[in-house]
Parts: sequence; structure tokens; C-alpha cells
Amino acid sequence: MEDKEKLEKIQMCRHSLSHVLAKAVKNVFGKENVKLAIGPAIDNGFYYDFDMQSVSPEQYELIEKEMKNIINKNEQFKRVELSREEALKLFENEPYKIELINELPDEEPISCYYLGEDFVDLCRGPHVECTAKLQSYAYKIGRISGAYWRGSEKNKMLQRVYVYAFADKKQLNDYINQLEEAKKRDHNKLGRELEYFTTVDYIGQGLPVMLPKGAKTIQIMQRFVEDEEERRGYLLTKTPFMSKNDLFKISGHWDHYKDSMFVLGDEEKDKEVFCLRPMTCPFQYQVYLNKPRSYKDLPMRLGETSTLFRNEASGECHGLIRVRQFTISEGHLMVRPDQLEDEFKGCLDLATYMLKTLGLYEDVSFRFSKWDENNKEKYIGSKEEWEKVQGEMRRILNDLNIDYFEADGEAAFYGPKLDIQIKNVHGKEDTIITIQIDFQIAERFGMYYIGEDGQKKLPYIIHRTSLGCYERTLAYLIEKYAGALPLWLCAEQVKVMNISENSEEYAREINNILQANGLRSVLDVRNEKIGYKIREAVGQKIPYMIIVGDGEKENNTISIRGRGNENSSGLKLEDFIARLKEEIKTFKR
Amino acid sequence: MEDKEKLEKIQMCRHSLSHVLAKAVKNVFGKENVKLAIGPAIDNGFYYDFDMQSVSPEQYELIEKEMKNIINKNEQFKRVELSREEALKLFENEPYKIELINELPDEEPISCYYLGEDFVDLCRGPHVECTAKLQSYAYKIGRISGAYWRGSEKNKMLQRVYVYAFADKKQLNDYINQLEEAKKRDHNKLGRELEYFTTVDYIGQGLPVMLPKGAKTIQIMQRFVEDEEERRGYLLTKTPFMSKNDLFKISGHWDHYKDSMFVLGDEEKDKEVFCLRPMTCPFQYQVYLNKPRSYKDLPMRLGETSTLFRNEASGECHGLIRVRQFTISEGHLMVRPDQLEDEFKGCLDLATYMLKTLGLYEDVSFRFSKWDENNKEKYIGSKEEWEKVQGEMRRILNDLNIDYFEADGEAAFYGPKLDIQIKNVHGKEDTIITIQIDFQIAERFGMYYIGEDGQKKLPYIIHRTSLGCYERTLAYLIEKYAGALPLWLCAEQVKVMNISENSEEYAREINNILQANGLRSVLDVRNEKIGYKIREAVGQKIPYMIIVGDGEKENNTISIRGRGNENSSGLKLEDFIARLKEEIKTFKR
Repeated sequence: MEDKEKLEKIQMCRHSLSHVLAKAVKNVFGKENVKLAIGPAIDNGFYYDFDMQSVSPEQYELIEKEMKNIINKNEQFKRVELSREEALKLFENEPYKIELINELPDEEPISCYYLGEDFVDLCRGPHVECTAKLQSYAYKIGRISGAYWRGSEKNKMLQRVYVYAFADKKQLNDYINQLEEAKKRDHNKLGRELEYFTTVDYIGQGLPVMLPKGAKTIQIMQRFVEDEEERRGYLLTKTPFMSKNDLFKISGHWDHYKDSMFVLGDEEKDKEVFCLRPMTCPFQYQVYLNKPRSYKDLPMRLGETSTLFRNEASGECHGLIRVRQFTISEGHLMVRPDQLEDEFKGCLDLATYMLKTLGLYEDVSFRFSKWDENNKEKYIGSKEEWEKVQGEMRRILNDLNIDYFEADGEAAFYGPKLDIQIKNVHGKEDTIITIQIDFQIAERFGMYYIGEDGQKKLPYIIHRTSLGCYERTLAYLIEKYAGALPLWLCAEQVKVMNISENSEEYAREINNILQANGLRSVLDVRNEKIGYKIREAVGQKIPYMIIVGDGEKENNTISIRGRGNENSSGLKLEDFIARLKEEIKTFKR
Repeated sequence: MEDKEKLEKIQMCRHSLSHVLAKAVKNVFGKENVKLAIGPAIDNGFYYDFDMQSVSPEQYELIEKEMKNIINKNEQFKRVELSREEALKLFENEPYKIELINELPDEEPISCYYLGEDFVDLCRGPHVECTAKLQSYAYKIGRISGAYWRGSEKNKMLQRVYVYAFADKKQLNDYINQLEEAKKRDHNKLGRELEYFTTVDYIGQGLPVMLPKGAKTIQIMQRFVEDEEERRGYLLTKTPFMSKNDLFKISGHWDHYKDSMFVLGDEEKDKEVFCLRPMTCPFQYQVYLNKPRSYKDLPMRLGETSTLFRNEASGECHGLIRVRQFTISEGHLMVRPDQLEDEFKGCLDLATYMLKTLGLYEDVSFRFSKWDENNKEKYIGSKEEWEKVQGEMRRILNDLNIDYFEADGEAAFYGPKLDIQIKNVHGKEDTIITIQIDFQIAERFGMYYIGEDGQKKLPYIIHRTSLGCYERTLAYLIEKYAGALPLWLCAEQVKVMNISENSEEYAREINNILQANGLRSVLDVRNEKIGYKIREAVGQKIPYMIIVGDGEKENNTISIRGRGNENSSGLKLEDFIARLKEEIKTFKR
């Protein structure tokens, strides 16, 4: 059976189960107390919207049991076709169905499906013939949440019952386990528990406060990126986070991006209107523009640890992944046409290096983001120009042998992009790194260079990130490693704890030696039971614990306990330090 | 003669010279064409405001010559006292004097001073008896600029003639040399020439763009500060640059600091009003507030490389010293009362260490900034509280044996400060580092800790910077070192240049080895004369040039040229590298 057919069959079974659910809910809560809305199949099962009293989690089981009853009776799905008049009569007590019936086209008969003799639902179908076909199916009510009829706040709030449904018990269990696992890894929960970050109501949505652990990990990544860029010939810049809107009028952001920007002041009233920057581009161009440039000055690679601001709606904000202010390794390369290919490849090589070092490479996919020809007003430049540059980019991508997919309408307003995509634990996809070819903005800012022939020429500009937004990257790292970040990224690498007061001084010594060796070591010499201290450190996912008591002190050794359930004793401190240094170096390659 | 008497005598001479100037200007341009305003003595001489045609620099000499004539004639200063009526008659052709006369109090006679028979000025005096007394004085017109009558834009623009005047030729020359030197060191000129930074009209005033050289030096300082703070037990944080105004209402900034803040939105119209932060305090407190704290958690030292925004008037902005956005090492220490003294001392020790390392320590003065009792509405808290905390701070400062001066009305709205002050090349003073004791804001945010006795208590908060605003510090460094920054702070430490094509490969090798050794080396293998390349590098104030030709290549040596006019050849590269590393280490201590 083809994948598509398989999928269609599953969706048919899920949708049939949604009728079973509707009948069960009517049976449990009383026919007259439940009004039916709609019940489609979805990726992990189906849902059904009911107008009814709210349902408590304790009642989930009742509903599931009644569903089982119905299935066990092997009731038949029977299709009937009605005229509008007949349909309106049949559903006279179902106001939502009446609304739907009145909107159906005139030409076709209206189909309904009976389930047994005493339940009927307006439905296009298809369905399984009888509930025996659903016998092997496994299902479970996931949650019930409010949902407006037809998604509009103006309508009544209904009860949406979400049910996970899979072809067998094992698949359902796998799915539920996966959900549990995702919940445990969710950076928005785990990141707070492990004290990477917090949010504060009176500061606002999308403005996370990085706690020392999160701030330190971001500092480590930031320095790593800045140093690697320097090694690759980038020049560091530091440009302002705000500007008069005059700058954004030249760059095109004022026309094409204003809604996503924080704007201070009002053109009608104020002498100066400022914008917080959503991108670094037009600021970094000023570095290029600081003096005349010649073909010998190119490629010019500029990098900056930049802060950007986007005016996201409060409801869109999510943990560290969708925020209103973020830090990002933005860079722009001004290149001659003959350098475009090499420089693009260099950017991708850098991005790949970063992703591999962080262990995220295996999780990403590559999206070739193109313009949308049918939506020209979203872009600047002519069709010919777009096709030429997109052709060039496709050639480079093919040449690099990247496994990419194409997406229309995802380009920047000034050019096509290679977006490196990653999914969070809930399956939501976002961009982690982007490399863009801009063939238009240089002209707007007059960013010429003098060619070998003495003529004024315009460079291509590659817009790129090495790693993308640090807050977002931290979120993916927390989810990927379930909070147990690689040693080199940990704010606290080692925790030294003493078993009794007698070994406190020895613990302090060890901690000092570790710190003097550049390791981030913390001390726990509280007057608490060692078991308590260990449990706490395990909960904090500290990579290594060093535990010292009288024995260790006498023999001048240490006992360690690793995050990976390692337990060793009688170790020499210097050997352990060498091992940690090696672990850090190896991970960073 | 006492200093004060001396000063009074100089001021009297300067003011007498201003009458000489006024008479000279009338003589040169015609009595009727020049209306007199006022002519006070100032620090470096005096000025006089005239309502007259504009004066070209070529005419300065004419005026100076005529002043000399008047002095040589040994004209007498003669005081006369008049009634208002007589005075109004005498000055009937001088509208500005008429305005002044009408404002003089009724009780006293109105004094005027004749200079010779044909010039009289309204004046309180005193003056020298005769111009022979001014014979030894040296003076020179500095510049002439527009100045509104009485400083108000609503009045007429007058010509203000600034004259430098000193007791003898040598003092005048010294002063002019010093001015020339200051002009050359002015970071706002030199910093642009050396490509540390630039500004861009369409971005706006007070929003400098740091070019690679400036960005790199700031990165070096930032990492140095972050690492030193970490070593001293600070925890790093990273908090948002903006917040809903709700936060600032709690902190008191909304009431006491709003005019200096950038505000997005309007409370009347918008659901959320955001502010760009002018200070880090209320954000960093959220880290403390993330979970309950006990007396054992204190002191808690939090540090952050923070970006702040201040809504300065366009006209107030100056280079890197007064800007609208800046980066600063802000930190807050939450301390128990018994820890206040030690922690305050620790902050001062850190600040001192930073200033000494940068070589700025000898240039600073210490200001104990207190509240202003007569301006209570500018502050929060009671008189008793202020006196208690200021007393405590004075005790600590005395204990530390700091040579400080006291300033009323310079405190923060929440507590007294120790401000470390520094002057720029033009003598204008600003704060470079501040250490503040805040006894009030913890309560507003509910920042309690549980004391040893189990009771809820409030900590003191020390607000402090390690180094202050990096942009401003860079400005002082450029001025202090006339652009020739210490080796460890230089974006480009070494420039390697070849004499001919033959030694290009050798130059490249050397450059690679230097970079592999962590030195910031750049290569100049352009096909240009070596003299040209050297002159360029000298102009860029590169600390060391390595010059290689056939001889060096053959013998595997290098020739170097240092910024301090050092010239050596036949050196081994590894010895030179060791020497640079030592120079860097020594400076950083």
C-alpha cells in the first residue's frame, strides 16, 4: 500500500472514531444537552467540538468506556443522501448543523452518516463500514479545551475534545511517551526549572530575563562565534540598535517591514522618529561606506554580536524561541560577482561547523526560500533579476550537494535565502541560521567600489548568521540534551562537595585548583547530608560531582560521579582535570 | 599673595582688557555701527558681545592692533557714578545698556567707567587705573561666534568675541599650545581619523557606529571586565533592554527619570507602553527575585554587560562621551548590613584595578554625591534615612583614605553615590565609574531574604560599574594616549610589510605565525613603496611594524619599527613574540 493510501485509511478511521466519540458523548451527557459542531481528523487523532457543559478530566474515562461499548456492538455506518429540506428537518435540534446545511451548495444532495439507528451526523464521509473495523484502534482523550465556533471570538465558546488515535496500542503508547518526553524536554518548562531563564509579567511577553546559567552559556557561545569569525577573516563591528526612520526608508524596511518594528514617535507630530532595529544590515553597511572602497578591499566580511527587536504580538511569544528582543551573530559580506560562490560556500561551511560543534547538525533541514511571483508587491526588483539570482543560488546549492527543499514566498524582500530549519520538541519548525544573497540594497545606499577597470561597481551582499539567535539556540540545546548541555557549554561544570566538616577545607582546595585551571567549578560545603547534596546536583544536571570525605583527604584523591551514571573513586585530581580538558577540546573539535 | 587675591587681580585685568577691546572695536568699525552688550572675564581671558556686522578672521589682527594702540597711549580708567536719568541719557544710543540700566535697583548710584575721554561703559568695576598696567598682558582673539542676547533664542543674535588673555606672553603661548594639543587629541576628531568610529546623519545624533578598530577595543575591554568580575565572584546576567512601563513605575524611574527615557507608545491610547531602559537595576533585581533567598545567599554579586538608552537632546550629544545608546558593565550587589562595608570596598578595589590597568587612574577625582535637602521632591526617602546612609558612606570613604570632595544634589534619587570623575581634553568633567548605596528600592520590589533569625529582611543594594560606559572610556583612552593605545587594547598590534615582491611569501609566513600566537597581526603586501607603507602605518599608530626584505628572508630574521621610534633589525621572530606577550601581560598586571 502506498503511503498516501495508508494515510487516507488512517484519516478515515480517525474520522469514523470522531462519530463514535460524538455518539458516546450524547449517550453519556444526554442527547439534548449536547449540540454537535464539527469533528475532523488531525495528525495525531481527531477532535470534536461540542456545545455542552464543561467536562472534568474524571469524566474522560466514562466517555472512553462508552466509545468502547459502541465499537464492541459493531454498529454500522450508513450513508444517506437528503435534500436541504429533509436535512434541515433531521437536524432541527442541532443549531450548528443547521448553520452548516444552509451554507452547502444547491447542486448536490446533502450526505449524512448514521451510526447505528439512533445517531446521525452531517458528513461528507467516507467512513469505515462498521465499528468492528475500528476494533484494533487505540485512542485516548488528550485534553479538552475551549474553542470558539468557527474560530471567531464573536461566537460561542465550545468544548473541543482532543483524542489521540492510532492504528494500535503500541503506536498510541509510543506517541504518548513521546509527548511526555517532549513535555519534559520543553525548554519553556525545563529551562525555567534549571534556572536558565525566567519571564516577568511587569516586564512583558517575549522579553526573557537570562539567569546566570543561561547568560553564561550564551556568553560562551558568543565568544566562540566571535573568535571563529575573527579566525575566518571577519572584522568586528558594533553598531547602534536604533536609528531615525530615515535609514529604514533607504533600506526599504520602512515600506516592507514597518509592522514588525518598534517605532518611537509619530511622523505627524515629532521632529525625529526612531525605530528599534529588526535587522543589522543597514547599520553595518555604514562601516563599508566609511570610506571609498576598491576591488582590492573585497570581500569585506563584517560580523557583529547584534541585538534585534521585533514587535511580535504578545500571544505569539514563546519561551526563548519567539521573543521580542534577541541576540544574534549577524554578518554581511560585500563581495564581487567573481567571489559570490566561494563566499557563499564559506558562510555555509561556517554555519555547518557551528551546528556540528553544538551537536545540532543532524536535526536541521535546508530550505531554499524563493520569492512569490504572484505577490510581487512584497518584494523589490524585477522578475528577471530574481530569476537570475535564484538560478545562481540554485546552482551553488546543487554544487554543494545539499539536500534542500524549495519554498515559494519565503525570500527576504531583497533576495533569496538558504534557511537552515530546525524543529522544537513540539514539532514546530523555525529558522536557526540563514544565508541570503542580496542583489539590490547596495545600490540604495550607494555602496560602490572601484573595479580593476577604474569603473564604479556594485557588490553583492551576503546577509548571514553563523549561529542565529542565541536565545533560540539555547532553547534547542536545552530540548536536544534535556537540559544536560555538553560540558564546554555548562555554566557549572563541576560541583565539589564534602561529606563532613572534616573534609571541607580539602573540598575548598580542590575547588580552587579547578578554577585556577579554567574550569567552572562551584562548591557545596553546606552542612547537609551528602545524599541530599548529590540529589540536588543531579537535579541541576551538573556534569561532574567531586565528592570528598576522610578517605579522599587522607589519600589525596577524589571520588567523582558523572551525569552519565559514572561512579569512580581513588582518582588523582590532575588526571581528572586533564580528562575534562580533553572532553572540552574534543567536543569543540 | 594668596591664590584668591591673585585670581581676583587677573580677573580685573581681563575685565579691563574687555573694555579695551570694546573701545578698539568701536574705533575700527565705527562708533555707530557697534552696539555694546556685555563683556565679562572668564577662565582663559574674556569675551565681549557686540551687535554689529560679522567679523572675518582677517579682521582679528586689526582689532588686536587697535587694542595695542590704546594700551600704548596709557589711557585712564575713570569711575563715575550717575543717577538712572543721567545714565539713560549717557547711553541713549546703546539699546542693550538701556535695557540693563532699567533693571538696576533703585537704591544705589549707577557706576560707569570711562576709558580715555571718548569711551564709556556701564560697569560695576573694579578696573586697573590705566592701560599701562596691562602692558605686560598677552592676549589674542580666539574665535568669534554667534550668541543670543541674554542667551534666549527669542532675542537678536550678537557677535561674541572670545579673547584669550594671560599675564604674560609665555602663559598665553602655553595655553594656546595646550589648546592645539587638545584639538589633536580630541577623540571626536582623532577617533574618526583613526577609524575608531563614525556617525551618520540618517541614523541620528548620539548613535555612533563603531568601526572594526573601535569595536575590537571595546570587545577586549568587555571581556577583560567580564572575566575579572567572574574571578571576583560575580554571576553574569543578561536582561532585556526594554520593559513595559509597569516595571519603571515600581522602580520609581517613571516618576523620577521619565524625561530621560525613550518611551514607546502612549498611556492614553496603547494597551502596553514600553520604555528603553536607562539603567539595568530593576531588570537585574528579577534575577534575585527568581526564588526565595536566605542570608546564606548574600552577598549576591550580579554583573552584566548592559546596553542603556538615554534620551539626550541632539545638541547635547558629543562624540563617544555623550551618547543616546551605550554599553556599560553594570552590576548590583545585594548585601546584608554587616557586609556593606566590605562589599563597597570590594567595588572600589575593582574600579581602581580597572582604572590602573587602563592607565587612567592618575586622571580621576572622587566625588561624594549627596542629596539636596532643599530639593526633596527629586528624591525618595526621609531626611533621617538619607543622613544615616550618607553618614555610613562618609565613614567608609574616610576609612579608605580616599581624597574625595562632596557635592550636594548629585545623588541618585534612591541614594548617595561615589562618582569617579574624569575630564576630557577640553576640561569638561564627566563620571566614568559610579558606586552607589541604595537603601530604598529593595522594598519596592519585595526583595527580602530570610535572616539567620528566620525573619524577613531587606538587603542594601550597591549599584556599581567596574569601568563605566565603554564608548566613553574608549574616548578617554584615545585622548589620553593621543590614539596610540596600549598594545593589549589595540585592534591591530603588528603590521607586517614586505619591501619587494621577493619577500612577500616570507611576510605572509610571519603574519601567520604571529596570528597563531594570538597576536593581532595584519599584512601589508601591497605593491607600494616601503616608505609609503611605513608612513601609513605610522599614521594609523600601529604599535609595531615588521619590515622584511631580502636580507631578513635570507637570515630568517625580522626588522621592526616601534611606535616609540624604535628601530631594530636582525631580530628573531620568536624573541619578538615573547617580548610582545610580556608587554601585554605586564600592562594587564
